[in-house]
Amino acid sequence: MAAKKKSAGSAQNGATERDRKTLRKIEELASATLRTVEKADNPAVALRVRALSNVSFNEKKRIIELGDRVQSREFFNTNMARKFMQTFLVANGCRELILQNKTVTIRQMYYILKHTLRGSSENTFEEQNESDPIIEDVEVATDALREELHLFANKKGLAAGSLVVNDAGDEIDLARMGRGGWGIPSICEPEVLKFVRSKAKFIMLVEKAAVWSRLNEDGFWKKNECILLTSEGQAARGIRRLLQRLATELKIPVYVLVDNDPWGLYIYSVLKQGSINLAYESMRLAVPGVRFIGMSSFDYKKFKLPNSVEIKLNKEDLARAEQMRNYPWFADKKWQNEIKELQKNGFKMEVDSILSKGISFITEEYIPKKLRDRDYLT
Amino acid sequence: MAAKKKSAGSAQNGATERDRKTLRKIEELASATLRTVEKADNPAVALRVRALSNVSFNEKKRIIELGDRVQSREFFNTNMARKFMQTFLVANGCRELILQNKTVTIRQMYYILKHTLRGSSENTFEEQNESDPIIEDVEVATDALREELHLFANKKGLAAGSLVVNDAGDEIDLARMGRGGWGIPSICEPEVLKFVRSKAKFIMLVEKAAVWSRLNEDGFWKKNECILLTSEGQAARGIRRLLQRLATELKIPVYVLVDNDPWGLYIYSVLKQGSINLAYESMRLAVPGVRFIGMSSFDYKKFKLPNSVEIKLNKEDLARAEQMRNYPWFADKKWQNEIKELQKNGFKMEVDSILSKGISFITEEYIPKKLRDRDYLT
Repeated sequence: MAAKKKSAGSAQNGATERDRKTLRKIEELASATLRTVEKADNPAVALRVRALSNVSFNEKKRIIELGDRVQSREFFNTNMARKFMQTFLVANGCRELILQNKTVTIRQMYYILKHTLRGSSENTFEEQNESDPIIEDVEVATDALREELHLFANKKGLAAGSLVVNDAGDEIDLARMGRGGWGIPSICEPEVLKFVRSKAKFIMLVEKAAVWSRLNEDGFWKKNECILLTSEGQAARGIRRLLQRLATELKIPVYVLVDNDPWGLYIYSVLKQGSINLAYESMRLAVPGVRFIGMSSFDYKKFKLPNSVEIKLNKEDLARAEQMRNYPWFADKKWQNEIKELQKNGFKMEVDSILSKGISFITEEYIPKKLRDRDYLT
Repeated sequence: MAAKKKSAGSAQNGATERDRKTLRKIEELASATLRTVEKADNPAVALRVRALSNVSFNEKKRIIELGDRVQSREFFNTNMARKFMQTFLVANGCRELILQNKTVTIRQMYYILKHTLRGSSENTFEEQNESDPIIEDVEVATDALREELHLFANKKGLAAGSLVVNDAGDEIDLARMGRGGWGIPSICEPEVLKFVRSKAKFIMLVEKAAVWSRLNEDGFWKKNECILLTSEGQAARGIRRLLQRLATELKIPVYVLVDNDPWGLYIYSVLKQGSINLAYESMRLAVPGVRFIGMSSFDYKKFKLPNSVEIKLNKEDLARAEQMRNYPWFADKKWQNEIKELQKNGFKMEVDSILSKGISFITEEYIPKKLRDRDYLT
């Protein structure tokens, strides 16, 4: 790409202040390396180690963080030379994206950068699983969010409710989206997505699109003056960033409604304190204040659900539940009780199963009672 | 559900003319059965056979159709009694949905209907794979679309471009959706979703959300005055119905851009002539006029793509390609050549890989050239 499109690249070309800052970081990475070359040293990039051994749970901030342990990636090292070259290919690719003010997915970036090295049969990258970790390296090395590098993972998630946004110049009223909702962009940084106004008293994020549709059709967000989001499964980076910004800028509580199984707990936990993989970005993606409103293992008795909602826990569920109990962020007694009850029940439940009590029971009884009783975990 | 919510049900309660019609169909199904009981006959429901043996490709209409072969589902038949009971449970469940003017997913319907029969340990349904085929039976028996029964599969797909819709009372300008797009509802029937105005000259449907984002960011639909859709993989019923209505009501051509592999061909083919599974709904979902704009196996040479775009065909791909060649709707020579070229290439390609020629090559060169040269298959 760089070869095809000539760009008299300097940091001034960036569209926004943030872009200019990111460009400076990338250029600093390159010039630091050049300086070592000029001094006839071995060119190297210092990278914080992205491994479980360098990840910890910050009890005070309540987020998962990357530690300070650093490794050096050197050019004159047969084991590292290929990765060294790849690091600068990715950094330069991102620089081009910023200069052209365009964004691509990490898969598209792989295609943009993949080519056969001149005079050899060696490819710059063989598979995407080779370029993805390098992208993470560049994020860490430049201390820039992936979104600041103009890269994104696939977009996922829908929004509706009491919120007017301005996205890329379009003013969009999320209270007038019909049954469809607004597709949450992959990149939700303040430069492109602005919150114009909102009367929302809280945010409700549900795991499943079908539950979102049920609540939307029942006018849940109108009756309760809130913002209704669905992550459509595990939350993508876009919705995590959106949620963090909404929680911080609007200063309203966030409730999360996921299936009653270890996977649902995991979705909640990633929203709350971040993930081990992306530990270096927790401070910009995690929302430590999110409230787990359900579906709780105690809801079975509390709401007298019929036995038709039970789905037997399988081996993997049981192993995963045990793992959950050992995470430091679930160490509190209330969480231990919650997970123990799941194990004791011997079954999991989907949020959809609440409909066995009536089509709109979830909208008219289940959630209102939970909110009224302040029946949630944090 | 029916037991909990009392509804002095009569066809008049339906919200729309269409709802009233569907209610009459369901009630006719029930009363026909009742009449046989009164005559002391064996109660039975006549159902068109939904099996490959009763499916054929209508060469003239260019859609896959269900034949007229009928089977009788009888109450006094040990093999059929359970299904007989389930058929009426589903029919009654749909009747309740219509009366309450609510919609649910087929999974939620399963939860609503699942219960243990009084005085026994037998469940009405054990798993969703037991209720789903019964729902299809009721669709066929009442000659109603699933959407008319107020049921839907999960929602998927995004839209942007030159189109203003009115959905459930909200007027939504798809030209002002920022980078997010409007989430396509699961149910796109004319009673809830109306097309207000459009200047679009054509519709472009792309398989992947990432490609949609690329085109949207490049302003493709602005420059070309069109409507830009993504199915986010295999097209759900909502987007198929939307596409059919757009093509018919706006009378504009539809172009489809999918990956160059047998799976991409399959996505195109389902949009075009329907699927074997849902053969009984082809006339309401299929769009025989859709144009396959790519990605064609010949594009590799035509656009001088680098070898980094090649992904070796695996065993399954090869078998699937051979299967495609034998479908009657791909019998035409041009299609045989297209599929033969795929086999000859020995590799498949993703639309994303076009970015190897430049970030916006797809928007500025690839698609415009295809449109200019009328380089597509039908």
